[in-house]
Amino acid sequence: MNVLIRGHHRHFRTVTFDAQRNAVVLIEQRRLPHRFATVATRDFRETAEAIQQMVVRGAPAIAAAAAYGLAQGVRAFRGRSSTTFARHLETVYQTLKSARPTAVDPVNAMDEVRTAMRTGADVAEQQSMALAAAEHFANASASQCEAIGQQGVKLIREGLRVLTHCNAGWLACVDFGTATAPLYAAQAAGRKFHVFCDETRPRSQGATLTAWELSQQGIPHHVIADNAAGHLMQRGEVDLVIVGSDRALGRTGEIANKIGTYTKAVLAHRHGIPFYVAIPLSTIDWQIKSGLAIPIEERDASEVLGAWGTITNPRTPGDRTKSGRHVYVRVADPASGARNPGFDVTPAELITGLITPVGIFKPTELWKQRRSLGWLA
Amino acid sequence: MNVLIRGHHRHFRTVTFDAQRNAVVLIEQRRLPHRFATVATRDFRETAEAIQQMVVRGAPAIAAAAAYGLAQGVRAFRGRSSTTFARHLETVYQTLKSARPTAVDPVNAMDEVRTAMRTGADVAEQQSMALAAAEHFANASASQCEAIGQQGVKLIREGLRVLTHCNAGWLACVDFGTATAPLYAAQAAGRKFHVFCDETRPRSQGATLTAWELSQQGIPHHVIADNAAGHLMQRGEVDLVIVGSDRALGRTGEIANKIGTYTKAVLAHRHGIPFYVAIPLSTIDWQIKSGLAIPIEERDASEVLGAWGTITNPRTPGDRTKSGRHVYVRVADPASGARNPGFDVTPAELITGLITPVGIFKPTELWKQRRSLGWLA
Repeated sequence: MNVLIRGHHRHFRTVTFDAQRNAVVLIEQRRLPHRFATVATRDFRETAEAIQQMVVRGAPAIAAAAAYGLAQGVRAFRGRSSTTFARHLETVYQTLKSARPTAVDPVNAMDEVRTAMRTGADVAEQQSMALAAAEHFANASASQCEAIGQQGVKLIREGLRVLTHCNAGWLACVDFGTATAPLYAAQAAGRKFHVFCDETRPRSQGATLTAWELSQQGIPHHVIADNAAGHLMQRGEVDLVIVGSDRALGRTGEIANKIGTYTKAVLAHRHGIPFYVAIPLSTIDWQIKSGLAIPIEERDASEVLGAWGTITNPRTPGDRTKSGRHVYVRVADPASGARNPGFDVTPAELITGLITPVGIFKPTELWKQRRSLGWLA
Repeated sequence: MNVLIRGHHRHFRTVTFDAQRNAVVLIEQRRLPHRFATVATRDFRETAEAIQQMVVRGAPAIAAAAAYGLAQGVRAFRGRSSTTFARHLETVYQTLKSARPTAVDPVNAMDEVRTAMRTGADVAEQQSMALAAAEHFANASASQCEAIGQQGVKLIREGLRVLTHCNAGWLACVDFGTATAPLYAAQAAGRKFHVFCDETRPRSQGATLTAWELSQQGIPHHVIADNAAGHLMQRGEVDLVIVGSDRALGRTGEIANKIGTYTKAVLAHRHGIPFYVAIPLSTIDWQIKSGLAIPIEERDASEVLGAWGTITNPRTPGDRTKSGRHVYVRVADPASGARNPGFDVTPAELITGLITPVGIFKPTELWKQRRSLGWLA
């Protein structure tokens, strides 16, 4: 998407690859909206670290980062022994896979790369094919997000008030976003609408990333505390909820997504507000048979016990001229611990529809539609 | 309650009055848990400002502050004209009333003081009676909270996992707390249990105040992001929810409380988890006929767009030796605005019971029980 840099719009993808330097290039998301910068990881371990530390986050974006990271790892291999190479490939794969356990997209993306590599005649050819497959995954992922926008645009009627949770925008993907893709498509079609961004504690991706994306695109929006969504729904101020997902179960229609998504789905259901989940095909898990089997990442307590931000005068928060230091502040008593599950699971019964690149489906229809949704068994 | 100051426990009330200095003495809650300090307001306008700025907060605590503030205001009157005095009284009353609109307790408390003053023969006597009535309100409020503890203690079974929202602890009251009173009573009875404290964005009273209170009392607890409550309920990790209230409608059983309470009630209802609201009698509003008529305070956007805390190394958040500056950090892009409703309304159907000083009632029973609940019509 286009980012305003020194007064000029420039097109950026969240994740790209620098073949010359064998580096995965990422937008450093932990400093947004305060500073826009890219970082280049030097090897696959740094790429895994960048995923774990959330330099890059969002299921489709970490999928592309993992696919490129796999190519980066195998391209760094010096040698000709296919046995050693296979062992090395396994190390790279497992390192990237374990960086964040809840999202299935990185696994699906790396499986695509590994499958593509199989036909390579020797190590060198497999190395080339790995990069080609990673590039193919990233391009296809961006195209799928664009297609999600075309499928979902009909839901974004003139004047609609949309709630979204966390960031399922272009920063969470290679480009376009999942939940935001229909919004950007509706804007391109000239439609006016309003977005409420859940701030999405503890890491505040709604406040820092989604709100920033919408600002960049000039889409009217408000940040709200996660606590406020229920009240707004109760007062009739929300017409539609749209979120992304880190794992959608093809067999049951359950979806895992950022902690708090389940709460929004329960609230939307109570108020009869449509609740949509936008996903590329890489988010579908055709294996797991129950949401309870989805690994829920438990993250560091410091995320809940404090916050990251830029030191500012609260009376003049818009004063960009005095941009202060970016620091971590402790909010709670250090004697208190925290529980910090990073994700939750929303059952199919609370989901109105899944917006995919090939159509909008009821969650229980996924299995029936598995062939058009890329199921390979 | 007892506060640990330099290794010694000392008993504190949240709100007291210094008759010599004609000052309302408040625990400065905006700096907790990082620093414990009291402030003394010099006149009723400073008291109203302290309520508005949330130096003191929590419906029963701001009720005592308003009652004392009214006494402070009328005691500062120099003159003998009862007409001028009546006009002055009205100014003091309205100033304190408008400081925070959602809670009914300050109004009920000040009405008690005004009523008590009526029998005074002259200005001087009315001034004395105002202070006596304010002291009476504060003492009665503390006793009522203690009684809430005795009524509610039976709900806190051994091994229970309790969720609470915001701070309805002794810091929100004169003493003992509302939602926490049954917890403190259960602890005194030797019972073991665990508390989850919703951090309660945007002002984080759960993380800063409730967690600190529980730490002081040695009650095991975890802070959680507001987003995590639904997930914990879904996984069967919460047995009971208990919250306070800023206004309980005697006619309908609806309750207003800190933003996010409604969401927790909806979630508890879905999971069949009992949801209790603990209130002193001053929280009951016998007039208003619908929750929609409760004024919902909309607070400053800066609360949602940022956070207050102490600059710390996130890797060593427990390091108290290097206590940094207490600052406001901006989290969101300043180009984004925010909606910041401070409260929401929970309907009677989602409330299992109201824990009052005189018994636990179903919300729809309030009206039937109005005489024992202090209704004066």
